[in-house]
Amino acid sequence: MKIAIDAMGGDHAPEVVIQGVEQARDELSDVEFLLYGDENKIRPLLKNDSHMTIIHTTEKVNSDDEPVRAIRSKKQASMVLAAQAVKSGEADAMISLGSTGALLAAGLFIVGRIKGIDRPGLMPTLPTTDGAGFVMLDVGANAENRASQLVQYAIMGDFYARDLRGLKAPKVGLLNNGTEANKGNELHQETYKLLSELDGINFVGNVESDSILKHSADVVVTDGFTGNAVLKTIEGSARTILGLIKHAIMDNGMKAKLGGLLLKDGIKSVANTFDVSSYGGAVLLGLKAPVVKAHGGADAKAVYYTVKQVQQMVANGTVQKVVEYFQAHPAAKA
Amino acid sequence: MKIAIDAMGGDHAPEVVIQGVEQARDELSDVEFLLYGDENKIRPLLKNDSHMTIIHTTEKVNSDDEPVRAIRSKKQASMVLAAQAVKSGEADAMISLGSTGALLAAGLFIVGRIKGIDRPGLMPTLPTTDGAGFVMLDVGANAENRASQLVQYAIMGDFYARDLRGLKAPKVGLLNNGTEANKGNELHQETYKLLSELDGINFVGNVESDSILKHSADVVVTDGFTGNAVLKTIEGSARTILGLIKHAIMDNGMKAKLGGLLLKDGIKSVANTFDVSSYGGAVLLGLKAPVVKAHGGADAKAVYYTVKQVQQMVANGTVQKVVEYFQAHPAAKA
Repeated sequence: MKIAIDAMGGDHAPEVVIQGVEQARDELSDVEFLLYGDENKIRPLLKNDSHMTIIHTTEKVNSDDEPVRAIRSKKQASMVLAAQAVKSGEADAMISLGSTGALLAAGLFIVGRIKGIDRPGLMPTLPTTDGAGFVMLDVGANAENRASQLVQYAIMGDFYARDLRGLKAPKVGLLNNGTEANKGNELHQETYKLLSELDGINFVGNVESDSILKHSADVVVTDGFTGNAVLKTIEGSARTILGLIKHAIMDNGMKAKLGGLLLKDGIKSVANTFDVSSYGGAVLLGLKAPVVKAHGGADAKAVYYTVKQVQQMVANGTVQKVVEYFQAHPAAKA
Repeated sequence: MKIAIDAMGGDHAPEVVIQGVEQARDELSDVEFLLYGDENKIRPLLKNDSHMTIIHTTEKVNSDDEPVRAIRSKKQASMVLAAQAVKSGEADAMISLGSTGALLAAGLFIVGRIKGIDRPGLMPTLPTTDGAGFVMLDVGANAENRASQLVQYAIMGDFYARDLRGLKAPKVGLLNNGTEANKGNELHQETYKLLSELDGINFVGNVESDSILKHSADVVVTDGFTGNAVLKTIEGSARTILGLIKHAIMDNGMKAKLGGLLLKDGIKSVANTFDVSSYGGAVLLGLKAPVVKAHGGADAKAVYYTVKQVQQMVANGTVQKVVEYFQAHPAAKA
């Protein structure tokens, strides 16, 4: 198994990328890593080059590059070369910490879509209060989606939850503005109907955004616009509230500081619940191979978990199952 | 000034309703209150009936009633009678803690829309880390909106922020999936263009849902589906995180309990920041008179602040300003 790594993407590249990949390499004897990036920077960071191949390039996609233009014009960028390795079959999957938009463009224009899926969706794993977590898609690969596309997200999310999260009958829910079947606009009513009629998935109906953190579903299906808004609201709310608590500890004298000290472990465990780096990166589901985006600010630990996630996706043939499903079920196509 | 009160709506009616209204009455000498509900329950709760008139009825709208049917068939329900008092001019405004859907139906079918506005929007005031707060609309009166309707929300939200929140040039932002002008789907791109060209408002461009709690805008404009999802995500995230912290305090032995005790004031102040009851209720903007929904679980304090909010809206003639604006600007109509 070979995994292509865009070693130059992200805020702390290539340091955290190399650290995380090496940590995973030391555990996974069956994986070869293709590291795309500046050899002069990468080589000195490597503890040893076992199972590692550096493909030298100095070009890279920047976070403020216009995504499609960058992918088309920067032919030697580390992200582009990694995607081409997947396209040519040289690598089985790729990981990048770089720009989400550029990675989506590289996925669409270089790696290519699975036949029958016209709009891949971006799927992160998010926290629940019981620690189990859930996946949600699409969270922003698209600004708009059709009902048939949401059905495809349900199918792909279901495969992922079974294969990667070990669930027998993942609860699939449609994000809506109420739990009743007739809720939402035309898109949601149509999607609800299609999901109700779909064989093989455990559709639990509509779920609301105030219940998803309480694990109302294992797979939350939504259009890319709403999913993006909900994802950013969760991130913003968590950051805001934990920040306010930190201020409450620091700005209220010795008594509060002592309280904070005594509660440190507890608050840390809450912060950890909302730190989903151990779940890996966000998967661009619908492409012909696993293309996974780790957070731009990810640390080595998050990279390590992302490598393990991708290794498991390749080992389980999750994408291949999706391909076969859509071959066998042409009616599910958009 | 007369304010009609649906005394029977909400989880703790009529007790908290009467308590909150009496507290406001003791401060506001210029307001008469029309209390719609069961006199046998209301009368014993009243400390005194100065400025209070009870209009006896035993019928009421239940939270699980189908909204439109309930409003049409329960002609003697406390909510329906209160809305009719506004319609006939007997009352200047109304307040209910009852079902949002039913109140929207009562607003549309009894109180009536402002000429030029086809879809009233529901607008709560939400917290920001700096304590200032912001308003957002629509958060769920509609499952779908057109660009022209979002422009109307911007105009109405702007009037409210000036009149009720005392802002000279409220920052009006469009909730979108990125800050660049070309972000979002067709609806957002068209709305962005219309808001950019609109005179008299301080349009600050797109805002993302991870920045609104940091006060990126005073008025956040969004469609009812996205707004509903974001509102519920904020509520759910805040409840979840504060709940996890409570558990961290209670379930980790004496040390954590002591820490919690020392930090009590700080955590309470964080919880208070996210308790927006002092901002009043959610306004159904676009109706011919102020119709305000207080939370079903509101306490007397929240009712008190809602009465003060409604009194100020009537005193400032906020709705009348909206009416006059749309008379003078027929082009802004849907």
